[in-house]
Amino acid sequence: MAEARKPITERPVLRVRAGDGDTEAEDEIAVEEPLEIRVAGDTLAITMRTPGADRELALGFLLGEGVIASRDDVGKVVHCGRLGDPEFGNVIDVASAPGIALAPPEPAHMRRGTVMSSACGVCGRHSIEDLLARCAPLPPGARASRALLFESVAQLARHQPGFEQSGGLHGAAVLAENGALLAAYEDVGRHNAVDKAIGALLLLGRVPADERVPDAERPSVLAVSGRVSFEIVQKALCARIPIVCGVSAPTSLAVDLAQRGHVTLAGFVRGDRLNVYSHAERVPA
Amino acid sequence: MAEARKPITERPVLRVRAGDGDTEAEDEIAVEEPLEIRVAGDTLAITMRTPGADRELALGFLLGEGVIASRDDVGKVVHCGRLGDPEFGNVIDVASAPGIALAPPEPAHMRRGTVMSSACGVCGRHSIEDLLARCAPLPPGARASRALLFESVAQLARHQPGFEQSGGLHGAAVLAENGALLAAYEDVGRHNAVDKAIGALLLLGRVPADERVPDAERPSVLAVSGRVSFEIVQKALCARIPIVCGVSAPTSLAVDLAQRGHVTLAGFVRGDRLNVYSHAERVPA
Repeated sequence: MAEARKPITERPVLRVRAGDGDTEAEDEIAVEEPLEIRVAGDTLAITMRTPGADRELALGFLLGEGVIASRDDVGKVVHCGRLGDPEFGNVIDVASAPGIALAPPEPAHMRRGTVMSSACGVCGRHSIEDLLARCAPLPPGARASRALLFESVAQLARHQPGFEQSGGLHGAAVLAENGALLAAYEDVGRHNAVDKAIGALLLLGRVPADERVPDAERPSVLAVSGRVSFEIVQKALCARIPIVCGVSAPTSLAVDLAQRGHVTLAGFVRGDRLNVYSHAERVPA
Repeated sequence: MAEARKPITERPVLRVRAGDGDTEAEDEIAVEEPLEIRVAGDTLAITMRTPGADRELALGFLLGEGVIASRDDVGKVVHCGRLGDPEFGNVIDVASAPGIALAPPEPAHMRRGTVMSSACGVCGRHSIEDLLARCAPLPPGARASRALLFESVAQLARHQPGFEQSGGLHGAAVLAENGALLAAYEDVGRHNAVDKAIGALLLLGRVPADERVPDAERPSVLAVSGRVSFEIVQKALCARIPIVCGVSAPTSLAVDLAQRGHVTLAGFVRGDRLNVYSHAERVPA
């Protein structure tokens, strides 16, 4: 995981510019990897973060949570495992200073996007494998027009009244293959907006979006108003929605999960342009 | 908490337009409140969300976490407590369908921004009071020029190389009262970028930013690249940084915590304009 220490990595991308044909390229992508934060050996939190400044991240987090009050409380802060091990760098342990007993809040306080592991080896690859063990990759077959991808973000923009008012809400929308809007919700959290849209379709029996759902009612595209992280692709995969469209950038772990889970991931979907980061065969020219 | 059911609320704001004088107004703000998600009575997660569609949110979340596979697994989904109780609406319980035993992942899987409560009354007011019990309100006194607020987001923009490259990284920067940049970090998570900046200053002994730190080295402004949620203000308060500047919108709970914690919260800090949502006395004209 030498890559895990860099903040930016590269992934192949298919750049789609309506009317101009497609271009294959390498795109620079923000790295997302889990970090497990331990206090005196006990796991306190796992957060999806960009590698680098892990010591600083752990200490800033512990200050905000009230576990430490200043640097005087802190002893050694070290990554677990051995340098050179393939998974080195994603578990960090904060020891207390001599004579100090750090008291983590009870019960264990977990950050979002959590993946549990008692070993020293939490990493993005494990996160993907753990998820695929309970949510199999999507079957091939489902396709959509590129026009539907553009339409999904246009529809999303038309269904964000709270964003219009406050500038403070994210949105998520789900469309069927025929372009029908199936659900649209807003929330201060992008992941919550996605949960609301998927939960609404679950109540209607349209999610999981598999062969039990009639074609015309089957969700095809999940559109989100911001960036696309691992967790957003996770939610689409578990709901069996084959295409995710984001208005902004995806993370490395989102792209890798989409690739492995057979989800088509499009980013920077704006106007008549978009980038496809995985399974472009679902959205042929 | 009738307000808790609305997605948008209002808060007083001081609109600052350089050269044009200040205007007092009411601003529309996205509501942020905790939701505790229970499965058959056991707390599984607490998330900061915008009220509304809580049933949908809970079910979408449980699908993504593998706790339910379809609506066939789900029995009653009800808010805990009694309609009309002041805190009704922030705890929701998902019962399993007859004959189904839902298996939450172990250990308890907590969402970010967690506030624990075993009663039926998790709510934003409690979140603020719990936090203030361990992080007292900031003392009065610390001031800054408005020029420093504009400068903080300008400096932040100049220290986001990963965002330039990838479009996928958030940034956080901390400035001293004299305008010196003390720390700047990037991350896929805005909260992580803030933790890194605060953790770096903690290692240098400049955080907590109280009277033990020499004036010239004392952090004055935390600038963040996106929206300002409860959690961002929490981190500033615990680090004793008196001013938070966001490029975008704050949430209701961020404004309320800033008000109670004596943090000056500015939003939509762009060019020569900004909105002050709390404690404008720190940034006089």
